[in-house]
Amino acid sequence: MNQRTTMINVLAGTVLFAIVIGVVLGFSRNSNSPSTAAVKQVSQMQHTLYNPVLPAAADGASVNVTLTAQEVLLPIANGVMYRAYTFNGTIPGPAIHVRQGQTVHFTLVNKGTMAHSIDFHAAQTPWNVNYGPVQPGKSFSFDFTPQFPGVFMYHCGTPPVIEHMANGMYGAIIVDPAGGYSSMQDLVFVQSEFYTTKLSDGSYAFDMNKALYGSPDYVTFNGYANQYKENPIVVKEGQPIRIFVVNAGPNNFSSFNIIGAIFSNNFPDGNPANATTGNQSVVVPPGGATMVQLTIPDAGMYPFVTHSFADASKGALGVLKATP
Amino acid sequence: MNQRTTMINVLAGTVLFAIVIGVVLGFSRNSNSPSTAAVKQVSQMQHTLYNPVLPAAADGASVNVTLTAQEVLLPIANGVMYRAYTFNGTIPGPAIHVRQGQTVHFTLVNKGTMAHSIDFHAAQTPWNVNYGPVQPGKSFSFDFTPQFPGVFMYHCGTPPVIEHMANGMYGAIIVDPAGGYSSMQDLVFVQSEFYTTKLSDGSYAFDMNKALYGSPDYVTFNGYANQYKENPIVVKEGQPIRIFVVNAGPNNFSSFNIIGAIFSNNFPDGNPANATTGNQSVVVPPGGATMVQLTIPDAGMYPFVTHSFADASKGALGVLKATP
Amino acid sequence: MNQRTTMINVLAGTVLFAIVIGVVLGFSRNSNSPSTAAVKQVSQMQHTLYNPVLPAAADGASVNVTLTAQEVLLPIANGVMYRAYTFNGTIPGPAIHVRQGQTVHFTLVNKGTMAHSIDFHAAQTPWNVNYGPVQPGKSFSFDFTPQFPGVFMYHCGTPPVIEHMANGMYGAIIVDPAGGYSSMQDLVFVQSEFYTTKLSDGSYAFDMNKALYGSPDYVTFNGYANQYKENPIVVKEGQPIRIFVVNAGPNNFSSFNIIGAIFSNNFPDGNPANATTGNQSVVVPPGGATMVQLTIPDAGMYPFVTHSFADASKGALGVLKATP
Repeated sequence: MNQRTTMINVLAGTVLFAIVIGVVLGFSRNSNSPSTAAVKQVSQMQHTLYNPVLPAAADGASVNVTLTAQEVLLPIANGVMYRAYTFNGTIPGPAIHVRQGQTVHFTLVNKGTMAHSIDFHAAQTPWNVNYGPVQPGKSFSFDFTPQFPGVFMYHCGTPPVIEHMANGMYGAIIVDPAGGYSSMQDLVFVQSEFYTTKLSDGSYAFDMNKALYGSPDYVTFNGYANQYKENPIVVKEGQPIRIFVVNAGPNNFSSFNIIGAIFSNNFPDGNPANATTGNQSVVVPPGGATMVQLTIPDAGMYPFVTHSFADASKGALGVLKATP
Repeated sequence: MNQRTTMINVLAGTVLFAIVIGVVLGFSRNSNSPSTAAVKQVSQMQHTLYNPVLPAAADGASVNVTLTAQEVLLPIANGVMYRAYTFNGTIPGPAIHVRQGQTVHFTLVNKGTMAHSIDFHAAQTPWNVNYGPVQPGKSFSFDFTPQFPGVFMYHCGTPPVIEHMANGMYGAIIVDPAGGYSSMQDLVFVQSEFYTTKLSDGSYAFDMNKALYGSPDYVTFNGYANQYKENPIVVKEGQPIRIFVVNAGPNNFSSFNIIGAIFSNNFPDGNPANATTGNQSVVVPPGGATMVQLTIPDAGMYPFVTHSFADASKGALGVLKATP
Repeated sequence: MNQRTTMINVLAGTVLFAIVIGVVLGFSRNSNSPSTAAVKQVSQMQHTLYNPVLPAAADGASVNVTLTAQEVLLPIANGVMYRAYTFNGTIPGPAIHVRQGQTVHFTLVNKGTMAHSIDFHAAQTPWNVNYGPVQPGKSFSFDFTPQFPGVFMYHCGTPPVIEHMANGMYGAIIVDPAGGYSSMQDLVFVQSEFYTTKLSDGSYAFDMNKALYGSPDYVTFNGYANQYKENPIVVKEGQPIRIFVVNAGPNNFSSFNIIGAIFSNNFPDGNPANATTGNQSVVVPPGGATMVQLTIPDAGMYPFVTHSFADASKGALGVLKATP
């Protein structure tokens, strides 16, 4: 059993409340007379731990990738049900793992109630041709071939962009170098902020004024405040770890840090050519990403945060559990 | 006709509302009884597109550079006339283009109503000797010889510094390496924020409280919200582009990104020795700068933003139009 | 007399109001009936200039380091007495100077009224083993051996972490490369923010709401607003300077800049392998650090700031005085 399998198994063991309620509500943003049944549904919905382990990259000269825009009600923190826009029903969307030079046949399916779109930071392609709005019930396909290895953000770019992003339409795409990576324990963290206002049915929705002029209410790794504080991510001491960190923002810069650890290397945007060494806290700009490597010498608990501590205090905090 | 000329011509063709009203008002900041004529003048004033094309560097062992401090009324967004402090009547001031090792004979002429000064980030010179206040009606000269190639901010440093900067007194100085640069399509973007309060005559002025404790109302590239969204900057597909990005702040960090493109290289502070590669969003600190290079493979529209999206939402958004 | 001694002497000469009142109050945070005597004591307390000169590194295979948690009343700006949490009674705590590969025998002594703890960014050690709470009146020891050279933050990590940090429990630890550094003029600056609310006795204490959702009231280098503006730090023209800059945050990113100077090199996290060159303003994330090198060609005054100018305006401004 390899390391990745081990991690997944242990993770599965820590998912204490993983009762998935895969309801796609397709709600109206301005609905103001929710039924009592809907309110109960909100309060009962449970969080599914987002799997932070990087999925394997597909082999072959090309790969098919489909993302489905879905507007769903999702928990983003304990007791906070949020009227989210998503790719594939989760925040963040799935981690996409491809290789440099591999052709990606991409399809966006819109099962939402409004136009959505895609913007792959890993692609070089005209915005007006391939990143335009896809109407509800429609789908759109195009191909791209990543030229640069690294870790990149993808997101919806439909105006108001800040709203579509802040509502959850983002994720990570990891592009392995053409020659591949050495085997490590590979994790993916997407940091992001939520700006919320409470609706009459008890759920929360996007607050544009807070997003433009205020502060976030929640900041998360992989879409749910403190989820890996309650459910530490298990890694092996003495064995190298590679963490792909995307900062989806939409606004704040991240200062990614692991308490008790030092990054042997940091690779801005995940490009192997961009190495720095011996880093304590690395800058990840909104809409940007980085890849860090480290080895934890001793078993124990190692919290990770953005060291911009207002944001850590709002949920951007998790724990790595290093086992012997 | 070389690329630069081409770009300028096409740009000129896109300036749809470039009716220049070069009025230098020399207003008092605290004037509170504007005439009706002045109010009309405010509402009629039009925006002149800021030319983003890097001017050619002067030849020779030395170069004369003069900047004139002028307090003028300028539009910073559609319908927003701002009581600006400027160098040479525009926000930002002119892009200054010199060479490493070339002596700059610099003169500051103050045609304003209060003291102003200069601070060249490209120079190494004592603040108390050469960056002191120049009184209204006076001028001051000194020489400096840039030792480091790159792209640097210049700005007024008269207290309150944040006010003189936020009012528009900044610009870019590009220092070519001694051996010069290869020919590319060279652009200059200066990002900056505006913190405004509306005056009784309908114009806007600096709001210190917002600048110290709040959020900007407008964030711009080259001094006017969304100007290159309405008037895309024309570049050639398949040919290298070099963009010098200064973040004049005064406060916010920038995460500079071009939608649909990847920077083949990023050079923090514009120094050729500082290359990173394959970057999606690059950090430009306030008072700092960077130089990015890219080639756009396919014709089309490529918006550029700071990916700190509250700021993009407030006007820090433009478009590159890549033509065959 | 070497350069360091010279600097210390000159610094001593500039300490105009260094009447130390070393009172450790051990106050209760919620005390609401201060005596008249206490109020007088507050208003009379004077600021002691924080020595910015890096102390010498200890020789030998190991070194003993003890930090004492103390809750004290300290001035953080002119007229602002702050109910601080500290290491060793000062903000920041002492600059710790060790060598790569040297074993640090560390002891935390808690003379405060609540639990405190330590987090060394220079160490690789389990959070749950060595960074846990130390109760009042207790002490705790552990060893660590820095593997990476650089400049790192240390801080209290007791929840609420943002409060313990914002109250002053942080400092710099400098780890020389195993082979040592060449001799330069070595300075240490710790930038940090204060979020304050005024108490009934006239002193100030931490404001959690401002720290999470607002803006700082003061931003300082070495714990006191503008202290090196009033008391410039003396350096020698033409001789290399090395500045270790820690950004203790807890929230804001720093854009460190010296007016009139350019950094010949910048080393993120202080690691000699991370050099960039010709930098004007360098990013220092909260919880991060950098080391810059420069030589000032000409005698004169050179202010240093974070070029995020709201923060400079709140006290993150000092002056280097270069003498012939």
